[in-house]
Amino acid sequence: MPRKIVIIGAHAAGVDAASAARKTDRKAEITLLTKEKNAGYSRCGLPFVLGRQIKDFSNLIVFPPSFYQMMKLNLKKETTATSINTDNKTVDTVDSSGRGETLPYDTLILTTGARSFIPPITGKEKEGVYSLRSIEDGQGIDRAIKNGARTAAVVGAGLIGLEAAVALRERGLDTTVVELLPQVLPVMLDKDLAKQVQEYLEKRGLKIIVGKGVDEILGTEKVKSVSIAGEEIPADVVVIATGIRANTDLATKAGIETGPTRTIKTNARMETNVKDIFAAGDCAESTNIITKKPVCPQLGTVAVRHGKVAGVNAAGGYSLFTGVLGSAVTQLFETQIGVTGLTEFFAKREGIESVTGTITSMTRANYFPGGKPIKVKLIAEKESQRIIGGQIIGGEEVTQRVNAISFAIQKQMTVRELAKMDTAYAPPLCETWDPMVLAAEIALMKLRGR
Amino acid sequence: MPRKIVIIGAHAAGVDAASAARKTDRKAEITLLTKEKNAGYSRCGLPFVLGRQIKDFSNLIVFPPSFYQMMKLNLKKETTATSINTDNKTVDTVDSSGRGETLPYDTLILTTGARSFIPPITGKEKEGVYSLRSIEDGQGIDRAIKNGARTAAVVGAGLIGLEAAVALRERGLDTTVVELLPQVLPVMLDKDLAKQVQEYLEKRGLKIIVGKGVDEILGTEKVKSVSIAGEEIPADVVVIATGIRANTDLATKAGIETGPTRTIKTNARMETNVKDIFAAGDCAESTNIITKKPVCPQLGTVAVRHGKVAGVNAAGGYSLFTGVLGSAVTQLFETQIGVTGLTEFFAKREGIESVTGTITSMTRANYFPGGKPIKVKLIAEKESQRIIGGQIIGGEEVTQRVNAISFAIQKQMTVRELAKMDTAYAPPLCETWDPMVLAAEIALMKLRGR
Repeated sequence: MPRKIVIIGAHAAGVDAASAARKTDRKAEITLLTKEKNAGYSRCGLPFVLGRQIKDFSNLIVFPPSFYQMMKLNLKKETTATSINTDNKTVDTVDSSGRGETLPYDTLILTTGARSFIPPITGKEKEGVYSLRSIEDGQGIDRAIKNGARTAAVVGAGLIGLEAAVALRERGLDTTVVELLPQVLPVMLDKDLAKQVQEYLEKRGLKIIVGKGVDEILGTEKVKSVSIAGEEIPADVVVIATGIRANTDLATKAGIETGPTRTIKTNARMETNVKDIFAAGDCAESTNIITKKPVCPQLGTVAVRHGKVAGVNAAGGYSLFTGVLGSAVTQLFETQIGVTGLTEFFAKREGIESVTGTITSMTRANYFPGGKPIKVKLIAEKESQRIIGGQIIGGEEVTQRVNAISFAIQKQMTVRELAKMDTAYAPPLCETWDPMVLAAEIALMKLRGR
Repeated sequence: MPRKIVIIGAHAAGVDAASAARKTDRKAEITLLTKEKNAGYSRCGLPFVLGRQIKDFSNLIVFPPSFYQMMKLNLKKETTATSINTDNKTVDTVDSSGRGETLPYDTLILTTGARSFIPPITGKEKEGVYSLRSIEDGQGIDRAIKNGARTAAVVGAGLIGLEAAVALRERGLDTTVVELLPQVLPVMLDKDLAKQVQEYLEKRGLKIIVGKGVDEILGTEKVKSVSIAGEEIPADVVVIATGIRANTDLATKAGIETGPTRTIKTNARMETNVKDIFAAGDCAESTNIITKKPVCPQLGTVAVRHGKVAGVNAAGGYSLFTGVLGSAVTQLFETQIGVTGLTEFFAKREGIESVTGTITSMTRANYFPGGKPIKVKLIAEKESQRIIGGQIIGGEEVTQRVNAISFAIQKQMTVRELAKMDTAYAPPLCETWDPMVLAAEIALMKLRGR
């Protein structure tokens, strides 16, 4: 009898799990379920379709039907898993026509993802209020713009909020971003670098209000404006980007435990507390490499890695997920912003005594035309002198510096070691002393008390 | 009495040594000597002035006179050190007017650099034959182009040779590159990747002949052509780029030892065998991080690092140079090429049994416009599974991937670890699975015998 693997969810984590399972067990019967009409698309690309860098939402579907055929995966779209019976090892499902089916499994992978979190703002149900999580959400905003929306408000200045705001601005809308916390990108950046990003975005035409919340969304049926601390900001479109919440109801009803981040508890093999049930992606908890504490950064890179490990293990193989650092990067207009590890703020909150080194340099030799400013901030643990975080803002070549610092953190590199690292150089491509190396030197000088 | 520090040479290594010495000892008397008219300029930038990406050769002078004033450095240009007396601790010098001077030193740093190596080809003394090491060399070639040169031959397909050839092509010259070894970039790339670079350069209009040498440079007084295996290739300009030789005569005459690479032997503090005499840059030997053998890669990045360590130590501080990997990168037309660590070829020559992982991917999400192909080749030591080398060819973001792999090598990362690394992702900036991670996975699969 071939092994029966059922995967609930069919996006980054689900499809990568299916793919890894297939490579591990050529004969398994692998079934993927998704509630949505579209499976296997890139949510990360949604703001860029909205901003028209990408032609159409359909371009985001990275796994075409031929992929499922080639990999012999049974994909059931618009099909909802209603309950899991862990004793019988079955999943009850219902499709769009209301037809129910009970699927037996040998191993089950939960990649149920997350949904947008909409805070309880008065007026949030009005027409013209959107989140940006699905193709349908994106299409809704796109339609509103095509129907003549001139002004927009984005609630939340995290990654998705700012990417959406930039897209709306690029579509010509007067756009205001409102963030309850006192800075933009509060999870990614310390306030010094966040201030620089905010000033840049303001210079590029975004209005940004930090440290304030939306009191009410105004308008009759359709949204007209938002009220912020007594001020009325016009908004034909409101995009709510205040984070996501994991979909764990199905799991918890079946007795599967969640952890302190309110996502499904997993071990390094992505196993839940229930035998033969795995979890992966935005619904699953993992461990931060530095703090060793449970985290769920809900990033695409983590989802695919989770999925791969869960898929191998669910198919009888052996694979470990080695933890997350939260490496992330984005492009806002012409500026790239990246982070890995802990910020100074989060290090402090974890009780880690740290030193930092920050430098502004250029992306090319100073005599080579076209170089762009780049700022690197490194955070090191004071006692061990090990690098625990990095933040970068620059015009080019930010992503791979984030990866280089991520490698450094994961291999427990000290700032002294980074200050001595052998790096590559050519006038059109970088400076002789890379800003990462210089930032390490500054942190080292502070550690030596100079 | 303030410490007297004399530095012979005033380019990358010399000026960085002076700068580090000044920061270490605020009161020292620091003197730099150089034979040349111009001090402290970037040789690495010469091909890009020739290619007109940079306006003028004077732009390459990265340390203006004000720098020496600010740092209180005594710079003597057009001044040659003729001998070192290690007993009296003095250096004899002669300036352009023929006036001699004897400079006492407490510590001496040799940054005498290297000179172009011109192989004994018949006709090499003809007008129109150049090397590309100094501003004067660059100006000579530039003048020849302005005077109507239409064709060029470049002897040597290393970094400088190819950069020069691209520049000549960009200036409109019919350009042929001749390389004695059977591939381009023989020090940087294995033959598989070298072949790809060669094909690219040929497509961009360069003529490339590998595995053959120049038999003769033809012409009456002025060069007219070069003869290669019976074929006559027209060449109004010949650029010889067959490597450099360290300037060590001054040192060896003074009893300073050279090593197997024919450069000055140094320890980790950049001390020579003679007390209080240091060496740094293209004239100084150091240790390869992987093989632990003496090497002298003669790169700008190594020169500045050498110089800094020598400068600190010569000024009474304590600093160690931790070895070289030979990380290097270049841009040829629109393609970036980088390397770090050992190639598969050199690993084999060192008796290291290795496995490789090679992948071609894209620099952006496959649905994001403007992505460019990128190829990553990783080399790992078979027994330890540690990464020992990386080669990358791509349209963007090559340099920092080289740095990331360099960090991995220096921190003894295994391919399994790299295959699991936390990396950053955004659709406009990279793929979800970075090609470095995928290349590691391929190497890992080979190691596991799949």
